[in-house]
Formats: sequence, C-alpha cells, structure tokens
Amino acid sequence: MAYIIIGVMGPGISATPTQMETAYALGYAIASSGWVLLTGGRQVGVMEAACQGAKAAGGLTVGILPSNDGTDRSAAVDIPILTGLGDARNAINVLSSQVVVACGLGPGTASEIALALKAQRPVILMAMPPGAIALWQSLATGPLAIAGTVAAALEQIQQWLAS
Amino acid sequence: MAYIIIGVMGPGISATPTQMETAYALGYAIASSGWVLLTGGRQVGVMEAACQGAKAAGGLTVGILPSNDGTDRSAAVDIPILTGLGDARNAINVLSSQVVVACGLGPGTASEIALALKAQRPVILMAMPPGAIALWQSLATGPLAIAGTVAAALEQIQQWLAS
Amino acid sequence: MAYIIIGVMGPGISATPTQMETAYALGYAIASSGWVLLTGGRQVGVMEAACQGAKAAGGLTVGILPSNDGTDRSAAVDIPILTGLGDARNAINVLSSQVVVACGLGPGTASEIALALKAQRPVILMAMPPGAIALWQSLATGPLAIAGTVAAALEQIQQWLAS
Amino acid sequence: MAYIIIGVMGPGISATPTQMETAYALGYAIASSGWVLLTGGRQVGVMEAACQGAKAAGGLTVGILPSNDGTDRSAAVDIPILTGLGDARNAINVLSSQVVVACGLGPGTASEIALALKAQRPVILMAMPPGAIALWQSLATGPLAIAGTVAAALEQIQQWLAS
Repeated sequence: MAYIIIGVMGPGISATPTQMETAYALGYAIASSGWVLLTGGRQVGVMEAACQGAKAAGGLTVGILPSNDGTDRSAAVDIPILTGLGDARNAINVLSSQVVVACGLGPGTASEIALALKAQRPVILMAMPPGAIALWQSLATGPLAIAGTVAAALEQIQQWLAS
Repeated sequence: MAYIIIGVMGPGISATPTQMETAYALGYAIASSGWVLLTGGRQVGVMEAACQGAKAAGGLTVGILPSNDGTDRSAAVDIPILTGLGDARNAINVLSSQVVVACGLGPGTASEIALALKAQRPVILMAMPPGAIALWQSLATGPLAIAGTVAAALEQIQQWLAS
Repeated sequence: MAYIIIGVMGPGISATPTQMETAYALGYAIASSGWVLLTGGRQVGVMEAACQGAKAAGGLTVGILPSNDGTDRSAAVDIPILTGLGDARNAINVLSSQVVVACGLGPGTASEIALALKAQRPVILMAMPPGAIALWQSLATGPLAIAGTVAAALEQIQQWLAS
Repeated sequence: MAYIIIGVMGPGISATPTQMETAYALGYAIASSGWVLLTGGRQVGVMEAACQGAKAAGGLTVGILPSNDGTDRSAAVDIPILTGLGDARNAINVLSSQVVVACGLGPGTASEIALALKAQRPVILMAMPPGAIALWQSLATGPLAIAGTVAAALEQIQQWLAS
C-alpha cells in the first residue's frame, strides 16, 4: 500500500522566520505521524525548513525539483525527483500530495494553491494574509481549511485521511 | 522576427457573460493590432470567446491545450499545441505570452497569474474581484496593471511593448 | 478549422550538411503546400534549416522551445512557444504534429520518433542509418514510412492527410 | 544525504515473461543493495515486476506515473508521483535516476533510453535486440554498458557509483 504523502508548500528565499518555524514544526509533525513529506525540494525557505523538521523526526522526504541536475536540492531531501520542468513542476507537487499545506504565500505558493483547488486536492492554509484566505475560499469547490496552529493542521489532515 | 504574442486567460465553463464579452473584445482588439492571440485553447469560456473575437478580426490564434488529442479544442484555434500535460500547461501559457491579460478569475486563471508574476511576465488584470487585485499586487515584483476597459488594456500593452 | 501542422525533427548541432539541405527543402515544401511547419525551434541544425526553408517559401513556423526565455530561438521561428520544460518538450513536438518527419538521427530525434510511435502519430524517416530503420519498424504499431526524397515525403504526407 | 536512486525501464503490457523475470530480479538486487528503485510506476510489465522484486527484498519504490490520479499505479509502488504529464514524464524518469537500466524495448523504453543518452545519464542495456544495441551505442556520448545478467548489471552500477 502506498505511503501517505503530505505536501508542504511556501515561499522560498522570501520566507519569514515565523513561516520557517511553522514549516519546521509541520515537517516534524508530519514525519512523526508516519507520513511522507513532499515539498518543492529546494534548499531555501519553507521547503528547506519543512524537510529539516521531517528529518529531525526520522521521517522520509521527497523533493520535486525544478532543475534537471539537483544542484538546487535541500540536503534534507531523501528522494530528489529531478523534473527539469521549472515551475511547471508545481502541478506535480499538488497532484502527488494527498493533502497540501500552504505555509505563507509567495507567487509560487499561490500557483500551487490554485492548482490544488483546480484538481480538488484538500488544502490547508497557514500563515496566510487575510485577503488571501477570502480569495482562496471564493475559488474552492473542494475541501479547504484554515489552521492557526500545527496541531490544528494535523487534526484536519487526520480527519480528511479518515474519511 | 517572431510575432508578438499576447495571452488572454480566464475562466472556462464558469465564465460569466460579461467576462466572455470582454474576452471577445480583447481577442478582436489584439488581432486588430497585428498581434497573435494565445489562450489555453479550450472550447469554453474566456478561451473560446477570445479566440472567436480574434478570428472575427482576421487574426491568428494559438491554443495551448491540456489534452493530447485536441478533442477539447476551440474551433477558433488556428494552431493547436497539444501538450498532454493537463494543467501543467498553464506554465507554458504564461511563458509564451509577452503580456498576459487575465479576464476574470477561476482557479486555473489564478495559477496562471501567479506563474506569470513568478516569471516576471507583464500582467493586466480585468474583471477581477477587488480582493484579488490587492493580493496579486502584494505578490508582484514585476509589471502589473489593472485595466477597466479593453481600450485601456490595449494602451497598456502598447506601452509595455514600446519600452 | 485548425491549420495542418507538420513537424520536422532532427539533430541540432551535430546535423550534417546533407541533413540540413534536406531539412531546408522539407521546410520549403511543407510551407509551399500550405501547411504550418513545427520544429523544436532552436537556432541550430535541422530545426534552423527547416524553419529557414519554410520562411523562404513564405510559410508559417512554430518552434516548441526547451527554454523559458527564448534565447535559444531560431530567427526563422514566427511563433515561439516557450515551454521551460527542457527535453520533456519533445512530447509536445510530436503530439502537436499531424505527421512527424525525422531527418537524420540524434538522441533527441530518437526520443521524438519513439514518442511519436507510442502516440501513434504518423512518422516518416529520412536520412536514417539502416539499423535505425529496422529498429523503428519493429517498434511501430501505427503508420511509419521511409522516404528517400523530399518529393516522396510530401507525397506520403498528402496521402495520409487525405485518408 | 540523498538516497541512491536506480531506474528500471521497460515495456508495459507487451513485456515478455523473460523480461519480467529479469525485471523482478533487478528490483530485488537493487533493493538488496540499499538503493531506491524508480520506475514509471504502472501496474504492468517491467515496471510492475521490478517494483514487486524490490518490495520482496524490503526495498523502497518510487513510481513516476503518467496519470493525475494514480489509478494506473502498481500496488508495489511506495511513493507514487502523480505527474499528469502522460509520456512527457519519461524525461523525469531518467533525470531522477543515477543509473538507468533498460530491460527490453518498447517505444516508451526507447524514448527513455534516448532521453537518458541526451542527458548523459549512465545507461545499462539488458534483453535488448542486437540491432538496438548498435543504435544506442552510435547515439551515446556518455556512459553506456550492456549487461547479460543481473549480476553484471549490479557490478556495473556499483562501479559507476564508486567513480
């Protein structure tokens, strides 16, 4: 039976310290729950922090990289998938995740949330500007939740996986 | 010298009559300006309307289709590019457009605006919910404009192409 | 009604003078027949020669580029499609062509012939090493022809388009 | 440090019993060596057999699927990457593999060998028609080996990984 894969998406170089702390805690909690962590795999921002959190908890990490050579890869990625697709790989990030957790918002993250909503992948929003929440809610036709804490995000994931 | 390609993106089946009228007028104006129209190529919504407008003005239309067989193609697409990539093709839509005009907003359109901002392609927003405008402005690091009319959009495109 | 798109694929920098002459003549003949020429769009080898031939005959040329910025583009491409996908764009080259003409053989061309055979797109082989012809024939389940001259290739395309 | 990922590619529904036995033994040997097995992930042919072999040895399996929903997935895939890209995902298969082992030859496999040669990924050919071997050799500019047994393939992989 396939592993459960939970995606964590968020800003790269422009991630704030708070977003990175949340991403680390998310990665740690996802790995502690026995799930595989999937990110965009790069060695910056939310991707890097989430992968490091998951590795600190002894988890397994998958990184879907834009490059074709992996030079942009986080050292905390166990399984680097080298797509060579640039940002078109964002579609793979969300399709391959049973739940997508967005932690913060950059243009790349926004494209991933939008693609997830289009593909009806369940989405959890964290550390999101208030105006953004209303926008994503207006575009959602599938499951979409807002979580104020990592614990609340985990509870939501467990609930969706159980149903 | 390569043709100038202007992309028009917007909702498919959920497009409103007003969005489709605007898209038709945009397509007509783009073709009348001697530019090539690029859309997602499907036979619904803003894609269909923009292509029909461009053909009414005797223009050339390119459709970047998600399917691998073109059965989803608008009859007003002259050059169907069959990608077989599903929504990952949205990245191609924006990369191939010298200016991206978003006319209305669905989840697919949101992914295209986000990818365009990430790739620093110039974006014009039309028929956009007020909350959405503020969000895209907060994510933009490159050229982004709001146009209330097709004439204003055309003027903005001409200004960007001249610079 | 969509234009008829004929793809010409072949080696880039390693193309021989004979292959480039054939590619030029193919591009010229395709454009003279009123069809659109599609290539991988780069400014080298068979892609470049075919596009120049088509332009010499007043035709329309589409280039499906691996880059996301078009700096690799042939000056004879009218409609550059910037995919940003690297060699994954080879799948688009064959899906978007109603007939694929392979002129010579490099590794990229080989991937395109293979993908065309998989997708059952009609393929014409030109300037192909004898061993290669037998291999492609053994893998084909759809239309596959060998042409010794551009005239023979054109006749084969017309025959397939008529059926 | 990232895991070592070895790709096994080969025919799907048209795989012969011998090819499937070899693929199973390859998967078993790869997993026994502590490497991750990567395949195209589908529930047929060489992909299925290699994954089952790897799981029998307690290994970890990654499947890069053409679909966007995973309904085509082998039950022996631990980590299904849902690309939604169709055969364009073949490029990802080879880019993500440190060594590509081709076991048998269908059109999809041929595209993967060709893309691997283009990207200079090391390739091992097994169960290959004689004419095909000569062709791939003529197209290779990077590492390419022929292996008559799984043991010989393993030795070649170890040698390349050590260098």
